[in-house]
Amino acid sequence: MTKPNKTSYDKTERNTVRRVPRRADHDVDTVHRLFDQAWFCHVGFVCEPGPTIIPMFHARIDDQIILHGATSSRLMMLIASGVPICLSVAMVDGLVLTRSLFHHSLNYRSADAFGFGEVITDPASRTRAFQAIAGKVMPGRWDEARQPNEQEAKASLLCSVQIESASAKIRTGGPIDDKDDYQLDVWAGVVPLQEQMLTPVSDPLSLREIAIPDYIDEFRRNRNG
Amino acid sequence: MTKPNKTSYDKTERNTVRRVPRRADHDVDTVHRLFDQAWFCHVGFVCEPGPTIIPMFHARIDDQIILHGATSSRLMMLIASGVPICLSVAMVDGLVLTRSLFHHSLNYRSADAFGFGEVITDPASRTRAFQAIAGKVMPGRWDEARQPNEQEAKASLLCSVQIESASAKIRTGGPIDDKDDYQLDVWAGVVPLQEQMLTPVSDPLSLREIAIPDYIDEFRRNRNG
Repeated sequence: MTKPNKTSYDKTERNTVRRVPRRADHDVDTVHRLFDQAWFCHVGFVCEPGPTIIPMFHARIDDQIILHGATSSRLMMLIASGVPICLSVAMVDGLVLTRSLFHHSLNYRSADAFGFGEVITDPASRTRAFQAIAGKVMPGRWDEARQPNEQEAKASLLCSVQIESASAKIRTGGPIDDKDDYQLDVWAGVVPLQEQMLTPVSDPLSLREIAIPDYIDEFRRNRNG
Repeated sequence: MTKPNKTSYDKTERNTVRRVPRRADHDVDTVHRLFDQAWFCHVGFVCEPGPTIIPMFHARIDDQIILHGATSSRLMMLIASGVPICLSVAMVDGLVLTRSLFHHSLNYRSADAFGFGEVITDPASRTRAFQAIAGKVMPGRWDEARQPNEQEAKASLLCSVQIESASAKIRTGGPIDDKDDYQLDVWAGVVPLQEQMLTPVSDPLSLREIAIPDYIDEFRRNRNG
């Protein structure tokens, strides 16, 4: 698991952004950042009679996306079998309201990655994958919560997907109207959307009161910006 | 475009939820609600050499999902051609932190729908689809913003996807740990995630000051809860 020796993904038939290509980005760091920001990815695969998508929690290590599930999971077995898969993340940042309905838009950040699943078997790589998953849910959690025991590790299938090809597509900024429409008496602007991490709610089934750990507050501050 | 004459989608090989089936729901209203709540859906289709996913803005009319794009768009032409597609929406509501890493989870709402795209050609249905799209971005906007002119209408390909099969999967609630782990001195609970619609930002390119319309404030209040 090493960093790709390139700063951008090669443009291919597959990852060429056709609509509004000025919003496209094939930069490796951009794609990685978007996969890091998204809480989950949509995993697309072909399962006769057609395409199927399942949203899955993911983590990233270098240029690989880590997926995990039960060893008994049909989906995980399919991913493990090495069929071609597509991983897609998207986040909405705002509603862009223009004077004409035609130019209404969303501000968003999205990325698509293509690759093939592979089972992670090496013990050190498995531990690293478990740590990446735990760290994605909550940085600092690996060191505090109980780590997987032998039985739990056996029940967990870990797969990596080396990103063979990818593209990002991002829209930011304000409304863009046709010249004549600026004369219209219609409010135009952006209604920003933002995910907030709210105050943690302690498990009412806890046997005793335990203070909310500092790493949760820190993560909240970082995410909430 | 009529309401389905059923309250739940038939369970088939395709839409059977295999992992944690107690979280599954095939109720028509639940699936519709989730598609209404999501700002966009992930559209999955097969485009050799494999599966491809594109996030797209959507609206819903009865049991149909409405997709739109440029008539020149390859994606829209593919959807219009009637190939099998999968539509997937997912929203995260919280990080579920358990005492063991193994039982960490997310609270989420997701739905998958399967169907085939069909071009909307009938003028009345096209107008209804345009209205549904405008009303999804912002209820009330259709009546205020400039409606599509002939040229814009010609440039817009509208497709409907009748939901042939669908399922929802939802997780709510607190952490669930193995019995022995409740003794551990580890904080457990939920960190809620919530999308907030922030204060609208007026377009700095506006020729004069126009007050933010009431329907935007109302929509914000409704979405922010």
